[in-house]
Amino acid sequence: MFSRIDHIGVAVEDLDAAIALHEQIYGMPVVHRETVTEQGVEAVLLDVGDNHVELLRPLSGETPVGRFLATRGPGLHHVAYRVTDIEAALARLRERGVRLIDETPRIGIRGSRVAFLHPSASGSVLTELVETATLHA
Amino acid sequence: MFSRIDHIGVAVEDLDAAIALHEQIYGMPVVHRETVTEQGVEAVLLDVGDNHVELLRPLSGETPVGRFLATRGPGLHHVAYRVTDIEAALARLRERGVRLIDETPRIGIRGSRVAFLHPSASGSVLTELVETATLHA
Repeated sequence: MFSRIDHIGVAVEDLDAAIALHEQIYGMPVVHRETVTEQGVEAVLLDVGDNHVELLRPLSGETPVGRFLATRGPGLHHVAYRVTDIEAALARLRERGVRLIDETPRIGIRGSRVAFLHPSASGSVLTELVETATLHA
Repeated sequence: MFSRIDHIGVAVEDLDAAIALHEQIYGMPVVHRETVTEQGVEAVLLDVGDNHVELLRPLSGETPVGRFLATRGPGLHHVAYRVTDIEAALARLRERGVRLIDETPRIGIRGSRVAFLHPSASGSVLTELVETATLHA
């Protein structure tokens, strides 16, 4: 059902410092930067082979990532798995009784379609499905 | 320097439930299971494309993963990046001033060689480097 780890999401307080760490020290190229108002984040995507690291800076404290930072501090926020057909994947998960945050996909960064599973159904790991736009497949 | 995300490490309380979730619901095959006494964990490795999920059950509360579970609960524990030459990668990180937990590689699961960076140097993300044994490259 999942073809790879698409990315890990990392909650950060200082986006410039996090970019410097990943780009200059780890050698990962920044490939995309986008403010996703709906999700309340500024997101920066870096390549690591066929996978990505997604750095997430909350736009305010009153956002999911802002609340995560306030209670847990910076660090690993979620994992995203790549799927080729997100509707089919969600249907299969629903059949298997998995609780979803998003019953239908929403638009993620770079025109991808994404959906989150509920942490109570995913072993307390915030888990995202990603169907990338054809351009970035 | 890093060729891909090798795996995400997930701290779990109930290993059987976590295996069932990843294997039966997510469809990830279990490819390896090993008790690593030195690290105080029972580890289960599952395939997701060229990447892996590593489930970690602590052997006791007095282990790094046991302490993680006690303070943060189950969930994402670390990310591991694949390298082809772990000594060269550690030397480069050291040159760039990155604080390391492991100055020299130690043996990980499936005969891999691994080293952890210090979270204070990696944006509070516990970060591992993995050079796999040739058999599993």
